[in-house]
Amino acid sequence: MGESFGPWTMGNDKAILPYVSSVNIACGFHAGDPSTMMDTIQLATRYPIHIGAHPGFQDLQGFGRREIQTTAREIYGLMVYQIGALGACAKALGTSIKHVKPHGALYNMAARKRELAEAIAQAIYDVDSSLILFGLSGTESIKAGRDKGLTVYSEVFADRTYQEDGTLTPRSNVDAVIRDHKQAVEQVIGMVKTGKVQSLQGTEVGIQADTICLHGDNADAIFFAKEINEKLKAEGIEIR
Amino acid sequence: MGESFGPWTMGNDKAILPYVSSVNIACGFHAGDPSTMMDTIQLATRYPIHIGAHPGFQDLQGFGRREIQTTAREIYGLMVYQIGALGACAKALGTSIKHVKPHGALYNMAARKRELAEAIAQAIYDVDSSLILFGLSGTESIKAGRDKGLTVYSEVFADRTYQEDGTLTPRSNVDAVIRDHKQAVEQVIGMVKTGKVQSLQGTEVGIQADTICLHGDNADAIFFAKEINEKLKAEGIEIR
Amino acid sequence: MGESFGPWTMGNDKAILPYVSSVNIACGFHAGDPSTMMDTIQLATRYPIHIGAHPGFQDLQGFGRREIQTTAREIYGLMVYQIGALGACAKALGTSIKHVKPHGALYNMAARKRELAEAIAQAIYDVDSSLILFGLSGTESIKAGRDKGLTVYSEVFADRTYQEDGTLTPRSNVDAVIRDHKQAVEQVIGMVKTGKVQSLQGTEVGIQADTICLHGDNADAIFFAKEINEKLKAEGIEIR
Amino acid sequence: MGESFGPWTMGNDKAILPYVSSVNIACGFHAGDPSTMMDTIQLATRYPIHIGAHPGFQDLQGFGRREIQTTAREIYGLMVYQIGALGACAKALGTSIKHVKPHGALYNMAARKRELAEAIAQAIYDVDSSLILFGLSGTESIKAGRDKGLTVYSEVFADRTYQEDGTLTPRSNVDAVIRDHKQAVEQVIGMVKTGKVQSLQGTEVGIQADTICLHGDNADAIFFAKEINEKLKAEGIEIR
Repeated sequence: MGESFGPWTMGNDKAILPYVSSVNIACGFHAGDPSTMMDTIQLATRYPIHIGAHPGFQDLQGFGRREIQTTAREIYGLMVYQIGALGACAKALGTSIKHVKPHGALYNMAARKRELAEAIAQAIYDVDSSLILFGLSGTESIKAGRDKGLTVYSEVFADRTYQEDGTLTPRSNVDAVIRDHKQAVEQVIGMVKTGKVQSLQGTEVGIQADTICLHGDNADAIFFAKEINEKLKAEGIEIR
Repeated sequence: MGESFGPWTMGNDKAILPYVSSVNIACGFHAGDPSTMMDTIQLATRYPIHIGAHPGFQDLQGFGRREIQTTAREIYGLMVYQIGALGACAKALGTSIKHVKPHGALYNMAARKRELAEAIAQAIYDVDSSLILFGLSGTESIKAGRDKGLTVYSEVFADRTYQEDGTLTPRSNVDAVIRDHKQAVEQVIGMVKTGKVQSLQGTEVGIQADTICLHGDNADAIFFAKEINEKLKAEGIEIR
Repeated sequence: MGESFGPWTMGNDKAILPYVSSVNIACGFHAGDPSTMMDTIQLATRYPIHIGAHPGFQDLQGFGRREIQTTAREIYGLMVYQIGALGACAKALGTSIKHVKPHGALYNMAARKRELAEAIAQAIYDVDSSLILFGLSGTESIKAGRDKGLTVYSEVFADRTYQEDGTLTPRSNVDAVIRDHKQAVEQVIGMVKTGKVQSLQGTEVGIQADTICLHGDNADAIFFAKEINEKLKAEGIEIR
Repeated sequence: MGESFGPWTMGNDKAILPYVSSVNIACGFHAGDPSTMMDTIQLATRYPIHIGAHPGFQDLQGFGRREIQTTAREIYGLMVYQIGALGACAKALGTSIKHVKPHGALYNMAARKRELAEAIAQAIYDVDSSLILFGLSGTESIKAGRDKGLTVYSEVFADRTYQEDGTLTPRSNVDAVIRDHKQAVEQVIGMVKTGKVQSLQGTEVGIQADTICLHGDNADAIFFAKEINEKLKAEGIEIR
């Protein structure tokens, strides 16, 4: 959320808020500016949800989605900086952040590279060790966070297919995205209920599903959020 | 201090540290980047001095010295953001910030315009009401900070001449800067000891001198810092 | 036009193109990025219209609408740079730019300040003296351009009221904007046909109306463009 | 050259100019700003040398030295944009650019990846097909430029060791840089005279040496430039 910037708006943050339990707010590097961050926090505090920092690469033009060859030390710095900035915005508005989810290319690089995952975990730990780290289920992000002593939430994706080793099918693969709505919702419910997902190769893979990722910049996101929300409740699964 | 950026260095932070009691560290908007901020804080913690945030306009090219037509709300946001960012860097390194001094054009605009001065004071208050505000002696900055309930330190300049009303002579005036070194040092000692300064018009003006500004990007700064430091001590005035 | 940036879109460039004879394309400083510039030029070349450069202050967050204290030399530089950048994009796509219209705060500052208006005229002249300068009718922009030897087009606004001296009523005035659609269209037709406009004070003021400004980021813009286009044609006035 | 930015200076452009025959000027993306570009061009025109564009990734903080995952289309755009911007600055000052050398990570990525090398060659061709492309000797950059029909100059490095296949030894290898000054100068002279270089593996490798790269941001650069300049002349080799 909060991925507007200056004169440009993105997403429909207001519409998605009734269906989620936590939101990740852009911190000014890949999107968001101080005023947008303030507005977004204020909007989010009207709902019984938790807010978290969504730090990314300093790349407005690429929306933080382009991998940038960055050292662990640089990543440590940009994490501390952005968590601090959003944390202060929250404090100024009488609330606080509860978690951190790296954005875009930073999220993906940390999932693969232990050294970057450790820089991220260390940065969170050094700013506030009670913050929860959201990372891609089964990856270096989660392992580094757990080793550091952070509470970690393993994240799963509703509309992406999985590989035999539990990683996401890369977007370069034509079957990376699940386009059938119903199938995507079923995959989510299955992951949450059984701790398993069927890989693209047909095998069953164990998966930890603590939190489900929904994109605020997606046109379908609101409808999708509503549907998953309702299905989970219908299955007796509490969203919290 | 900390006004390097990426591959570019500025000033000689290390050389000036032995002679000062507090430093203002750039927060990434007019200068500084997360790595530079970290390095600067780490360097400063080796000395018995206090560190503070030095937030400015987001204008690297103009080094935050160009006035930008900015709303009070935008200034509130950029203050909260930058104080939070530097505060988190300090926290990650096991220390904390004690004061805030707006930079360049932001500092000058806040001195003149009550509305902007209030936005700055409110931002500091909302992030951490124990932070001390440094502002230009006798201006709206100091008044707004005091009215808000902040501890304020009135700042004076060694090498600038003053007007009858206690404001600095604008740089457009040929007599704005005191080029004679000895005269500048004498003006500072006088302001601290007597609470008065002689204006360019020849009158004596009351002035509050809680802190003395020295620029880290000035070639003479180190020599100047050393001299003022020694003269103050010779006069039995403790720097703390 | 072309005021999207990276992942963010703005305006509906495609819809407005059938109703205009020339478009100003953002050059990357206040909006636009190289890819957006290329796309916009390509789109525009499908219509029998002229394209021009729309250079602005380097201020994405403020969309170039915040006045920035800038020297004539800096403005000369940013003008040359942006005209060159857009000109090369046009050349690479087999076309060329015909005019230049400064954007936002730069446009307004140049209207008031002779020194800045001269820097703009000189920059255009030095890059390509055959480029036409669009400036606010009756202001320093037009005078400086004419004195420099440039072809100048005086620009008028359909939805803004005018003062006795031929300048626009400042937006701080409650009557600055004409909200009644029909009245705005009538004012435009009147200015074009008679060379006169009724000021807010009730007097008749001479005005040169070579080109009419329409904003692409305005929701009503398309409807408005269509209406003015049709009315002008109905009056036997050719748009070219 | 021209790698200063806003308040920050880099290199000693003036001192190196007497010893070179062409200079690459930063175009505002990885370094340089319009005023710096203008000043640098003006300085260079006092010497009998050619100026060229040195476009890079839009990454001031990383100085264009961090690889950014960029599409061929994005690279095409940033090349056209920056060549156009510098070309206009040159035109405004009564001169013109003669060549283009991509900077830093962009240069290195283009050497390896055909698709990016083609985007660069196409961009240069589309803006001005008479511009000479400087690329790393023996790489995709040179091949793509030649295939496109551009004049290409193969670039060699004095202080870097070479691999059996004619590529530079990566900086991750401890023997990548030749630290012995005399040895570096000898390698350059050898490459120019014989068209061969001894690889790190001990074999002799054919190499095309049309132009020799010297870094302006290096403290030793001036001394080095002077020495190579003198040795080449002493060998009867004309620098032009």
